[in-house]
Amino acid sequence: MNDGAPATLRVAVLGCGVVGTEVVRRLLTNASELHARTGTRLELVGIGVRSTATPRDPVVPTELLTEDLRGLATSADIVIELMGGIEPARGLVTGALAAGASVITANKALLAQHGPELYEAADAARVDLFYEAAVAGAVPVVRGVRESLAGDKITRVLGIVNGTTNYILDEMTSGGLDFEKALAQAQELGYAEADPTADVEGLDAAAKAAILASLAFHSRTSLDDVPVQGITSISPEDIASAAQTGHVIKLLAIAEQGTYDGVGGLAVRVHPALVPVEHPLASVRGPFNAVFVEAEAAGTLMFYGAGAGGEATASAVLGDVVAAARHRVNGGKAPSESAHAALPPMPAQAVHTRYQMRLDVLDVPGVLAEIAAVVAAHGVSIETVRQGMRDPDEGAALVIVTHSASESALAATVADLDTLEVVERITSILRVEGT
Amino acid sequence: MNDGAPATLRVAVLGCGVVGTEVVRRLLTNASELHARTGTRLELVGIGVRSTATPRDPVVPTELLTEDLRGLATSADIVIELMGGIEPARGLVTGALAAGASVITANKALLAQHGPELYEAADAARVDLFYEAAVAGAVPVVRGVRESLAGDKITRVLGIVNGTTNYILDEMTSGGLDFEKALAQAQELGYAEADPTADVEGLDAAAKAAILASLAFHSRTSLDDVPVQGITSISPEDIASAAQTGHVIKLLAIAEQGTYDGVGGLAVRVHPALVPVEHPLASVRGPFNAVFVEAEAAGTLMFYGAGAGGEATASAVLGDVVAAARHRVNGGKAPSESAHAALPPMPAQAVHTRYQMRLDVLDVPGVLAEIAAVVAAHGVSIETVRQGMRDPDEGAALVIVTHSASESALAATVADLDTLEVVERITSILRVEGT
Repeated sequence: MNDGAPATLRVAVLGCGVVGTEVVRRLLTNASELHARTGTRLELVGIGVRSTATPRDPVVPTELLTEDLRGLATSADIVIELMGGIEPARGLVTGALAAGASVITANKALLAQHGPELYEAADAARVDLFYEAAVAGAVPVVRGVRESLAGDKITRVLGIVNGTTNYILDEMTSGGLDFEKALAQAQELGYAEADPTADVEGLDAAAKAAILASLAFHSRTSLDDVPVQGITSISPEDIASAAQTGHVIKLLAIAEQGTYDGVGGLAVRVHPALVPVEHPLASVRGPFNAVFVEAEAAGTLMFYGAGAGGEATASAVLGDVVAAARHRVNGGKAPSESAHAALPPMPAQAVHTRYQMRLDVLDVPGVLAEIAAVVAAHGVSIETVRQGMRDPDEGAALVIVTHSASESALAATVADLDTLEVVERITSILRVEGT
Repeated sequence: MNDGAPATLRVAVLGCGVVGTEVVRRLLTNASELHARTGTRLELVGIGVRSTATPRDPVVPTELLTEDLRGLATSADIVIELMGGIEPARGLVTGALAAGASVITANKALLAQHGPELYEAADAARVDLFYEAAVAGAVPVVRGVRESLAGDKITRVLGIVNGTTNYILDEMTSGGLDFEKALAQAQELGYAEADPTADVEGLDAAAKAAILASLAFHSRTSLDDVPVQGITSISPEDIASAAQTGHVIKLLAIAEQGTYDGVGGLAVRVHPALVPVEHPLASVRGPFNAVFVEAEAAGTLMFYGAGAGGEATASAVLGDVVAAARHRVNGGKAPSESAHAALPPMPAQAVHTRYQMRLDVLDVPGVLAEIAAVVAAHGVSIETVRQGMRDPDEGAALVIVTHSASESALAATVADLDTLEVVERITSILRVEGT
């Protein structure tokens, strides 16, 4: 394309919510910088919306609004999809790619469910499909994993990729709030939505985990491959108990290589976990996001920043717009998202990790021996046992941390412990990560 | 170039020290992954060394060693320069670019001194010049700043870009060592060289600051534009005093926009500074590096990882090799390092920051009033004053933190304080950053 570098590229924005408005603002107000950085003029040719009658921010030029989403998506050089959800976004993106447009999207649900078909469509059309804003907002982890680590082998990704839950856990940790109060506070501050389900149940994080796993391990991981546990059952006692041994509780999106029956596999999951306070992820505060990557040669890397918000997300979108525009000016396209080294998904039961179990037990002699025998019978070995916090009148409590054990061995252990008379209640089971 | 995608790209490595050996190892052992990721075979055609007689790691194929550096540099598609120093590296890189090769370099000294002429040579030849490994080792900050933030406006960069000094300061902080002991320990562990001057005097950090500033602010900043202060005068008392107010001392490379006489300018500098413990940079421990970036839309981002070491540096080099190879296969080149928005350098005296001054003073009435009057006379305002640590028999000590003040106002204040009879000694002056 060098011989015919375009003087102007036609840019379409689909969706004009908070992020869309910010993208429009920056396309218009930073036009000369964007021209200098891309070598071409980026002309905003239309803003696709469901209804042109909805009131908009004054920065949005009314004359560019259109309800003809399909027409707009198939008549631009660069299409920015910010509508969210599966349809009509999926059809519009597919149509835009087929029409030869480069597509930028912030739509994690779409990518987590239909990523592979979209990557293939982009490859077939020899155009870019970029999505930095879909994972961890402004944090440039997609580019970091795809390009900077392209000559390395990633072995594990641990991410705090949901700001709402990180804010809630942080307030529970530093402010001593319980989950309900911390959630209410997050909602007041706009960090959590009125219906917080997708965040607190870990579903948002799971979509990002699927995208990150696909990218880091050149695999085809979809949302269905990601077992999820949210943070609604995390109690102030869990937080306090973690603090006693120098840990904080974080909701982690994890993708890692493992072996199962001697065969390499990829395990992806989302759950709350104890993280040692000295781990870089432990100091990620409030609504921030961070992705910690372990690679064979690079060692450990971390990408940190704002995981949400109109402006931050717009920054990531515009970085992708500049990259796509440069490709259209200078020739070239981003590498394929090929699954050339695809690892098979590992069954969840085969995942090995350390566990912390809190148990309420009878305060009688021989309790520990009895419990230890059950744990040992399942081949799980105990790293530490300590006394948990409990009113002495009510009985005793134990906190057991295991060495690395498989999910299935742990589940069997828990089932057996639950039948012991000396065990009144299994208060919580949490994984320990980052060690 | 799409129509004639090469089946093989000829790769030359110049220099075969620790990093060169790791790069050779990974080029050879990961050949099939690299082929899958680039779409072409990367053929290692030669390893340029000063003497083929020097013993090498067994991984290095002896038959590829050559002393004909110039011939090798001008006969490959991708040239990886890992020799360090200015000459012959500069001539070899220039020759390679002129011959149409894409160049990857980890040579910070070369870029800090001759970056602009090399970027222009790469642009003229329409080839890539990549240097991720030259700043903060494996930490992908060059790509992050150049590409991910290409649609944003960076306002400030704060970096811990020298692992040796970070290790020393960290040991002084957590282990209570003095500078000499911490340096000796760093040398024992291989984190500091026998001659540590370039690290502890801040010169290594200054070269990286110049490169980062050029990149983040589209400017032409060279090493000569960077005032430098190292860490050799940092005392255990400085560390302890910083801790009392919730700060740690870090050696920072700083590039920021400011105004001087109403005109925008770019201030670049390297010096130790107090950083609040809750700042993400404060928890960067040991020999790690991190670069904290503030941008208009993205807000704050941080890139963290291993700043040195053969393997980590090789990872960054290979990420660049893959990017350059993809460009040669798919067409395209990286964007120019144009200085289109170049800010003029700001005079060092115009830089505004907060200061912490520690003074030994006479223990007599009216001392504070006298000192406060001198400070106020220079238009500097005091944020806090507290009693410093000193043996009461010897007199009193004061720790004064100022509001933001210009370097010149501070210098004049200090000069005047030094003439006061009540001031026995100005023990230390440190800047406070990250707020």
